[in-house]
Formats: sequence, structure tokens, C-alpha cells
Amino acid sequence: MDPSMPSVKDLTADNITATVIAINSNCNDPRMKYLFERLVSHIHDFARETRLTTSEWQASIKFLTEVGQICTDVRQEFILLSDVLGLSLLVDSIDHPKPENSTEGTVIGPFHTHEAKDLAHGSAISADPAGEPMLVVGTVKDTKGNPIPDVKIDVWETDSKGFYDVQYSDHGEPDGRAVIRSDQNGDFFFNAIVPVPYPIPHDGPVGKLLQKLHRHPYRPSHFHFMFEKPGYDHLITALYRRGDPYEASDAVFGVKNSLVVDIGTVSDVDGLAKKYKVDPSTRLMTYDFVLVSDEEAKVLRHKKAQEAIEKQGLTNAGIVDGLVIPQQ
Amino acid sequence: MDPSMPSVKDLTADNITATVIAINSNCNDPRMKYLFERLVSHIHDFARETRLTTSEWQASIKFLTEVGQICTDVRQEFILLSDVLGLSLLVDSIDHPKPENSTEGTVIGPFHTHEAKDLAHGSAISADPAGEPMLVVGTVKDTKGNPIPDVKIDVWETDSKGFYDVQYSDHGEPDGRAVIRSDQNGDFFFNAIVPVPYPIPHDGPVGKLLQKLHRHPYRPSHFHFMFEKPGYDHLITALYRRGDPYEASDAVFGVKNSLVVDIGTVSDVDGLAKKYKVDPSTRLMTYDFVLVSDEEAKVLRHKKAQEAIEKQGLTNAGIVDGLVIPQQ
Repeated sequence: MDPSMPSVKDLTADNITATVIAINSNCNDPRMKYLFERLVSHIHDFARETRLTTSEWQASIKFLTEVGQICTDVRQEFILLSDVLGLSLLVDSIDHPKPENSTEGTVIGPFHTHEAKDLAHGSAISADPAGEPMLVVGTVKDTKGNPIPDVKIDVWETDSKGFYDVQYSDHGEPDGRAVIRSDQNGDFFFNAIVPVPYPIPHDGPVGKLLQKLHRHPYRPSHFHFMFEKPGYDHLITALYRRGDPYEASDAVFGVKNSLVVDIGTVSDVDGLAKKYKVDPSTRLMTYDFVLVSDEEAKVLRHKKAQEAIEKQGLTNAGIVDGLVIPQQ
Repeated sequence: MDPSMPSVKDLTADNITATVIAINSNCNDPRMKYLFERLVSHIHDFARETRLTTSEWQASIKFLTEVGQICTDVRQEFILLSDVLGLSLLVDSIDHPKPENSTEGTVIGPFHTHEAKDLAHGSAISADPAGEPMLVVGTVKDTKGNPIPDVKIDVWETDSKGFYDVQYSDHGEPDGRAVIRSDQNGDFFFNAIVPVPYPIPHDGPVGKLLQKLHRHPYRPSHFHFMFEKPGYDHLITALYRRGDPYEASDAVFGVKNSLVVDIGTVSDVDGLAKKYKVDPSTRLMTYDFVLVSDEEAKVLRHKKAQEAIEKQGLTNAGIVDGLVIPQQ
């Protein structure tokens, strides 16, 4: 027994929060200590403000258990839950702040895998014969306009029915996903299919929750991109098809105007069909991605954390290694 | 698409919370709507205040998934998580407020089952030959001192090694648990074993969390009771052994001074061994339980909810069917 710890007897709604926080403060990781201080505070305030009942608590325990139990290697229901509550987008915006001239981020969603194969420029990433062929042509630059070569670009999309490869119980080789690398000019291109709108998996607890909240489970047509290169802030983003019926009501809050694109046709641009060796009727998605350097992201993250500290009036909080930690 | 719903495009850390709340406000259950308004608010504030990082978010998703995946019919890791964060005790204190002259409640813990058999007074509930025999003698009364007959009393405890029956993979018949009913005088008695301190299951994610928080997983020796009778507020409580090494540091914050008892010996009281037909050396636990009527609990719950509403300055909140709901 640590004599410096308070007695945890006779706790009431009025003193339990401070006591639990005091007990957790033995933790020797100052960041974890701060996270648990805020977490306990918010969870307790939630219960106190709502006068949470025992049966509501039991229903929450049951719900969270079901969310965990439906998870598998290829289904991540807790990410879905975070997505539909807007937490995923919020965390991305906090941790990956973007200067005005860079590409905005969005939710990663639960369907990124580490199985995608490295494919050469011009490869076809989708084997779905029912998909409408689409050429994807992109560039990767820094905020000063310089091309960034050799960026690892993870790309993934559903098939024409709106399902990712891992959603099929009998999926074999990775399909609808690949890792592409930008060339010396920061360029890349590959063949894919036109994305379609689809519902997030809604046969589980998160789907039932959306139903109770009178919300639809649809995501507008989109195509996922993830950019990684040492020295640059990890960019998780997606391009959304303009005019999609769910463009303004994405179930996971991921759409940003700067990421909404027109899907054209290769024949719109002279010489493109020949250059990329595709049929002129092939649909076309192009985008110039702009990555933020680690240093730029760090400075911006620090600035925003400082603003948040001031907004909260945490006069004794500091930022250590980029993480907010209150000074004791 | 509901035209009354806001567009969910271009969400930022500054506008996402109000937007998610607006989207959820289509829910036609006003209580659920309020719970999700407060939940989203707190989760988002938590992320904003701590500047939660993507890797911390990923670690949280992984942790919650593991908590769900270790759950089985007989292991409830989410209840453990709620217990060690003090939420379980808090919810009990909110939903089951007790007037001064009644028996206090405490955490139910993850080991109550619905398998316990109805046993007659004087039955032995534990088959553990290594347990130290203990006679339990109790009364159940209302707050005016009148005996309450025919109360369903669920009782459960560990064996002498500190394990509940369901923690053994090969457990057969229920052991260390029973349902007893109070007689016409509100009395009941049965034979059990002296409770021992034990660690909550700490081989899973919650155990690892406690370790990182530098907390021990022990609960002081205790014996669980649950009282049910129509017209009376459900009482979930436990008695704790005075002088236990973990009396003031219960890992799940359940101990209250009014529930700490001396465990005596039957021979301490003249005639007791004969009356209850037990050996005079048998240990003895006695307690006079006082139940609160549904009506008393309702009035007190309402009063405390009203106080909480005032404290929060929710001037337009109301209480409908005992539940806090903001008036629109």
C-alpha cells in the first residue's frame, strides 16, 4: 500500500472523480496520466450530467461487448463506431493539421490492410470485370511546389458492388488495393474502377445504432489514398466523386470540398489515351497532392495545441515532445 | 436526404461536434438523443483537450477491441473496465440513491450469474472443503423498521482460493452462490465460507492497464448480496471484512465504511450454535439490511437529478419518467 495514496473508501458521486484520478496519478508516464485524468473526468461528468441509469449502463456494456466481439482481422467495428461519432475525423484534424496550400486529410476507415502489393505504374488494381475502368493520374509535391519522388502511396477502393476485398469471406489475393510509388517527377498513375457509393457494414451493432439514431449508413463514392515518406507528415486522405447523392451526408463525416473531384473521361485531354495506353473512353481521375513536411506539421500542431491550452485555461500545461502534458 | 439536416462537408475541430449532434438529433427517442449529445460532446472535448494523436487513437481502438474479444458468457472485461475507472460505483450511487438510514449499495462486479439455485435457510452455499466455515445471519427491513418477508436475496462469493465458480474452465454446478428468501420476520441465514481477498482477473487488457497505471488489482475480502422485491429499489451491495489489507485500496472502489463488518465466531453469542445447528467454532457474519421503497428512491433520485440540473445550469432541462431530458 502506498501511504501517499488517498483512502478509496466511502466514495460518492461528489468525491469519486478526484479519488480515481489521484489513484491513477501513480502512473509514471505523464502523458498517460493526463489522458486518464481527462478520460475519467469526462466519463464521470457524462454519467453525472445524464443521471445515467443502471439499465442504460448495462445496455452500454452489452453494446461495447458486441462491438468488440464482431471484430475480426478484417472487420474493425470500433473504428466504425469512432467514424460515425465523428471522432476519427476529429483526431485526424488534430494530429495532422494542414496549412492552406496542402491536401486535406480524412478518415482512414476500417478497410485499409497491409496486404496490398507493390504495383508498377500503369498496373490495374481492380480485377472486377463489372467495374467501369478509370485511369488515375496524380502528382505528389511539397508545399513549395517541388515534386516528391519515391513516396509510398497506398490506394484502395471497393469493387463495383461497393465491397472491399476483405468483406468477402472467400477473398484470396488482395484486390482493389495496391502500393504505388511516385517517380522522380513526383508523378504516378494506375488503372482502377470508378468508385461507387456504399453503406458501411450495417449488419452489426454500429449499424443498429445508426438505425436508432435515424441515420443512413451510406458513404459517397470515394477512393482512398495514403502517402508515406520519411520527412513528411503521414497523409491519409480520399477523393470524393462530385454529385454523389451522399456527398453532403457521409455517414462518417469524411467529405471535404477540396477533396471532391469531377470524374472525367480520358478523351477530354488530348494525347492522354496514347500517353497512358488506355482506351479513350476510360474514365479519368486526376489530383495534385501536396504533402506537409514533418517540420511544418510539427510547428502547426504545436501552435494549435498552444491555442487549445489557452482556450481551456490550462495555464500550467506544457507541450513535451509534441504532446500536451500539464505541468505539476 | 433530410433537407432539415445540415451538410456534413468540410468539418473541422471547431464545427464537427455541433454537426454530429445535429445529425444525431433526428433520433426520435429524446433520452437517447440527450445521451448521444452529451457523449459526443465529451468524447470530442477529450480529444480536443488532450490533442489526441492518431497513434493514441489506434492504441485505444486496439485496447477496446481486446477488451471485447476476451469477453465470454462468464467473463465480462467491460464491466471490469468500468469498475476500475470508478464508473460502476458512480452509476450505482446515481441510480440507487440511499437515505441515511438505509443500506448503502456498491459495485455488482462481473461475476454475478443467473444460475444460482434457490436454497433453503441453513443450506451450505459453498462446497469448498478448504474454506473456513462461516454462518451468515441477516435481517431485511424497510426504512421504518418493518421486516420485509419474501425478498429474493442473491448471494455470491469466491472459494478459499479467491475464484468464483465461473472462473474455472471445468465448473459444473453453481458453487459459492445461491438465492435465499427472507422469511415472514424478514430473517434469513445460510452457511458459507469466510471471504478472502483476491485480484480481479488481471491476465487481460484491464490487468495490463492497471499495471501501466501502477495500480494493484486486489479487492478486499467481501461477500456479495443482491436484494429484489417488487415495490423496493433493487439493492446491490456487499459486506467487507474489517482489517483486510486492501480495505482502503479496493481496485474497484467498492468499499464503504457502513458495509465493513467484523467477522466474529458463533460462540461469541449465547445460544447461537444451538439455534442455527452449527459448530460453536464456526465464524459469524451478521447484518441488518435496510431496503428503500421504490417511492422513496424515486423521490430522492428526482431531487438529486434536479440538483444536478441546477448545478449544470441546464435551465431548460426537465425530468420525464425519472430521466433527465432537456426541453427543446
